[in-house]
Amino acid sequence: MYTLYLSKGSSAISVQILLEEIGARYEIEEVSIADGDNAKPAYLAVNPKGRIPALLTPEGVLTENTAIIAYLAQAHASAGLMPDTAFAFAKAQALNAYIATTAHVAFAHLKRGARWADDPEAHTSMIEKVPDNIRECARIIEEHYIAGPWALGDEYSFCDPYLFLMQKWMQATGVDITEFPKLMAHRDLMLARPAVKAALARQ
Amino acid sequence: MYTLYLSKGSSAISVQILLEEIGARYEIEEVSIADGDNAKPAYLAVNPKGRIPALLTPEGVLTENTAIIAYLAQAHASAGLMPDTAFAFAKAQALNAYIATTAHVAFAHLKRGARWADDPEAHTSMIEKVPDNIRECARIIEEHYIAGPWALGDEYSFCDPYLFLMQKWMQATGVDITEFPKLMAHRDLMLARPAVKAALARQ
Repeated sequence: MYTLYLSKGSSAISVQILLEEIGARYEIEEVSIADGDNAKPAYLAVNPKGRIPALLTPEGVLTENTAIIAYLAQAHASAGLMPDTAFAFAKAQALNAYIATTAHVAFAHLKRGARWADDPEAHTSMIEKVPDNIRECARIIEEHYIAGPWALGDEYSFCDPYLFLMQKWMQATGVDITEFPKLMAHRDLMLARPAVKAALARQ
Repeated sequence: MYTLYLSKGSSAISVQILLEEIGARYEIEEVSIADGDNAKPAYLAVNPKGRIPALLTPEGVLTENTAIIAYLAQAHASAGLMPDTAFAFAKAQALNAYIATTAHVAFAHLKRGARWADDPEAHTSMIEKVPDNIRECARIIEEHYIAGPWALGDEYSFCDPYLFLMQKWMQATGVDITEFPKLMAHRDLMLARPAVKAALARQ
């Protein structure tokens, strides 16, 4: 049994999809970012960083999307979502890390500019640049990092629910996904999966 | 045999220290960020993202610090730098992910603000906030994520060379490491390791 701390509409959907894919029992503890719940003592006791998601496992709390999804794939090996060599796993991790450190960070400058500057005019300047940055991330992933049809090739893996965030960020910033046929096909394949439908319905 | 693409003074030192720790044979290919080498076609053919480091392995190129260090620990298991359960590995990965997505990104706003805004005044506002953000990352790591004396406790691991970057970013932003006794002790232990001395000397 797991408890997933999530804010609706946040990147935590990637972890939730993976929980559905592996058939794990889990409950959702809602922590609304819009209401500031992530900065309140109750949640800081779970995750002192105040970021979403966190996953309570039988062994303790895990944080950070990329760590959690690799954990779930590894701990539920029979689901077959983990590449089977160290090198293939590292390539998968590199894709996840790029999404986390570059694409997600680029997107965060849309509404979370206060993390990196206090001046409201700086936030305006940041916001202007977000669509170009998301488009560039999409281009790099499209041209170099989607093997197709799934992120790592013919086999669905723990990378796919996380890659699925790209289409969300593209939509939110007005980047046209039809410029990127592999990403568009990936989105459509994801939306057709029962696990994705179940995760979206449960939110 | 590995080839490490690095820029002197960059975060690639974490990978280089790990290569020294595991006793791997490697050569260094210098890619100077100051000279813009990372954006030139020769390097983009290695890493289309134009970021440092990249590691050429016998199986191909790997990118992203957090993916590379986990790979080296896993591929050289006899070095004993990889936690031995999925949960312990996930905790280690969560620390690495926090450093990559939050601390490294906070530090990047000091000199790489042009990634996220075009307005020079926005860069000024970003720069002003960097020391506070690095201090907050240091506080969170100090209070919640260093088990001590090493990142994960009594055993040195693949996390330690990466955590070693914190002291570098603190020094570069004027954050006083003496406020953080665990981080200070960690820095001192790292500086005494032959692998760290060898890596620094070879740069």
